[in-house]
Amino acid sequence: MYNGLTVKNSHLHIGNVDTVELAKQYGTPLYVFDEDVIRNAIREYKNSIDRYYDGNGMTLYASKAFSCLEMYRIAAEEGIGIDVVSGGELYTALKSGFNPQNIFMHGNNKSEAELKMVVENAVGHIVIDSFDEIVLLDNIAKEQGKTVKVLLRIKPGIDAHTHDFIKTGQNDCKFGFMLESGEAMVAVEQALKAKNLLLTGFHCHIGSQIFSTDPFCLAAEVMAKFIADVKQKFSHTVTELNLGGGFGIRYTDEDTPLPYDAFMQKVSTTLKTTCKDLDITVPRVYIEPGRSIVGHAGITLYTVGPKKQIPDIRTYVAVDGGMGDNPRYALYGAKYEAVVANKADQPKTFTATIAGKCCESDLLGENVKMQEPQNGDILAVLATGAYNYSMASNYNRLPRPAAVMVKNSEHRLIIKRETYEDLISKDI
Amino acid sequence: MYNGLTVKNSHLHIGNVDTVELAKQYGTPLYVFDEDVIRNAIREYKNSIDRYYDGNGMTLYASKAFSCLEMYRIAAEEGIGIDVVSGGELYTALKSGFNPQNIFMHGNNKSEAELKMVVENAVGHIVIDSFDEIVLLDNIAKEQGKTVKVLLRIKPGIDAHTHDFIKTGQNDCKFGFMLESGEAMVAVEQALKAKNLLLTGFHCHIGSQIFSTDPFCLAAEVMAKFIADVKQKFSHTVTELNLGGGFGIRYTDEDTPLPYDAFMQKVSTTLKTTCKDLDITVPRVYIEPGRSIVGHAGITLYTVGPKKQIPDIRTYVAVDGGMGDNPRYALYGAKYEAVVANKADQPKTFTATIAGKCCESDLLGENVKMQEPQNGDILAVLATGAYNYSMASNYNRLPRPAAVMVKNSEHRLIIKRETYEDLISKDI
Repeated sequence: MYNGLTVKNSHLHIGNVDTVELAKQYGTPLYVFDEDVIRNAIREYKNSIDRYYDGNGMTLYASKAFSCLEMYRIAAEEGIGIDVVSGGELYTALKSGFNPQNIFMHGNNKSEAELKMVVENAVGHIVIDSFDEIVLLDNIAKEQGKTVKVLLRIKPGIDAHTHDFIKTGQNDCKFGFMLESGEAMVAVEQALKAKNLLLTGFHCHIGSQIFSTDPFCLAAEVMAKFIADVKQKFSHTVTELNLGGGFGIRYTDEDTPLPYDAFMQKVSTTLKTTCKDLDITVPRVYIEPGRSIVGHAGITLYTVGPKKQIPDIRTYVAVDGGMGDNPRYALYGAKYEAVVANKADQPKTFTATIAGKCCESDLLGENVKMQEPQNGDILAVLATGAYNYSMASNYNRLPRPAAVMVKNSEHRLIIKRETYEDLISKDI
Repeated sequence: MYNGLTVKNSHLHIGNVDTVELAKQYGTPLYVFDEDVIRNAIREYKNSIDRYYDGNGMTLYASKAFSCLEMYRIAAEEGIGIDVVSGGELYTALKSGFNPQNIFMHGNNKSEAELKMVVENAVGHIVIDSFDEIVLLDNIAKEQGKTVKVLLRIKPGIDAHTHDFIKTGQNDCKFGFMLESGEAMVAVEQALKAKNLLLTGFHCHIGSQIFSTDPFCLAAEVMAKFIADVKQKFSHTVTELNLGGGFGIRYTDEDTPLPYDAFMQKVSTTLKTTCKDLDITVPRVYIEPGRSIVGHAGITLYTVGPKKQIPDIRTYVAVDGGMGDNPRYALYGAKYEAVVANKADQPKTFTATIAGKCCESDLLGENVKMQEPQNGDILAVLATGAYNYSMASNYNRLPRPAAVMVKNSEHRLIIKRETYEDLISKDI
């Protein structure tokens, strides 16, 4: 079982709280997060980066995985930074009181309004993604009489062998400047010429849900060489290197994630060795875990509805949510584990396809092993902390679920459930 | 070009309104719908069903395609019924003042609360999907001292040869009762025994985006036989047959949709002939078009951002929306046509991959032909009226776009744009 999940009195517990009671009190579908699991994951990254980069590094929570006021508060309390990818995420982070100095702003197509907001709020690091943005941001900074710290997003040309939709480091990608073609060097030149920009570093991101250290080591090496090339060509030393995120997590037994500490050690060794060979100072290193901070910490509780056995084919078990609250099966064929929360001590002798309630063949998983469920049981789908709430829709006009945070036998609402009134609040 | 779209003064117009002006006035991304195209599509169905079923039929707008107050008002004004698939859609329809007698309630896993709402509001037709629901609904009707009209959803066992995710008529499906195995007949028996249910008919739905009449004719034939079998076995005559929806629309040149009138004629001939052969009265027929009513009527306007040419590979053109407002490429690899709205009279000499602004490799289409776009141009993506707004999310905390209705050179807001404040309105 995942961290933080236990079984007591035959019920699944999270953070020592009975999930069946949570379902009763808050209703279903319900997202539940274990605060200790989140904080422990953050601390593991933080301690590891401190150790291997001698205090000269910082973990940034990639908040698109799960963005809400409470997550930014937790990140702030733990002393890490965050990355945001839109004005909406930035707005949420600022409203939570997050220190803008520790925010990295991403985006392949930041709007003028977003960039103005970034500069006005003194966001510490802006990751520039295109030539157009160099010009636009420089103008905005000039208008506001400021000089802003920027990084350039570089495509290191590494294919991390993952799902088509989440490969972002190779050359055929909408993000960043290509290294191979010389585009990245031209971007450096233009950024250095821009009077209101201060080029402090580079960013790269090679993909998502990656299970090998090798592509990260290769990226570190490639980026260090680029820093050396830039130093030689322009006599400009950048001091920051953001290696992005993409660390895989275990959704099912098929996934074998890296121990993050071993990962950090290996990548840092590669980076330090390369920097030494190139005679450059080791830059301040940032990493951007998102999924691996919140993915395991979250589960979704559903109430089981009708069960349909299709002879010789399969059994469908309907739940009261679906692709509206978790579109990852529909999008990526993502796999999840499930537990019948009120029978969690029983063996998983049943195999079912979990069907959502959307008027579409929406599924949460095929051939999932679970305890035999009955109408009214509570089904827990595990490791739904990342990219579930954040990608949720109102498809079929289903209200989006509430989210609850548990910690040391206590629980509190962190996101309210949508109501029918909310659904028509924008309709005229 | 699609119905309702024209080019004047080199600008794309919809319903005689300049799209470039709409983008300026309402901002982008922006959903724009042409009311005449919607009303004409409705009337085409309505006239056709009236003609071929001698007034004994009704078109139901399948509102999950695009659900908002204004769409239900238009359906009501046109004198057609609707189908809804959740409490949220029902709530919206009722708030618009829609006559509940002309509402069909669907869903494979309706909750007790939803069924109570349905009975309390005297919804005219409830499509029962499971054995559990027969019992639950009968109890609720009894509690409220009512008898409710129900249809049973039947799986006719027809594979409409379409995309995996939208095949719903074959046996391996979460919806309905299987005909082949005898399950459907058992359901009829149980529904007839339920004292507070009045079994008035059957429903079937064989899939979505279907381009051939044959599977619909086959479904009509199979269902008529089932009506005859039920009559013979239980001496119970059902009077309603809902043949569902699924009529394909043209997204690009690759799609060749049916003329709806020819479709209606062919299916009605099959149904009438079969009923005559079986010596049963032709039932009242319902059809449920959704996509084919609103799909073509809608376009999405985006502002073009940075353009990135990847040598020897492709050119990315970034827009200020993406999988948040249109997840259909990410979900189904859906294809769309696009026009640079402010250069709509120029030839489409440019081929681009349209990249969204989400921090993910989100695309709206690959290798799409268009006029050569520049940063700041307005890009119109066509035929986005169905399953775009309804499936939209706040992924990356991007606010969902506004929607505007145009009619005879006039335009009005029908859905307000979300604000940053809205994004945190549920956060605690």
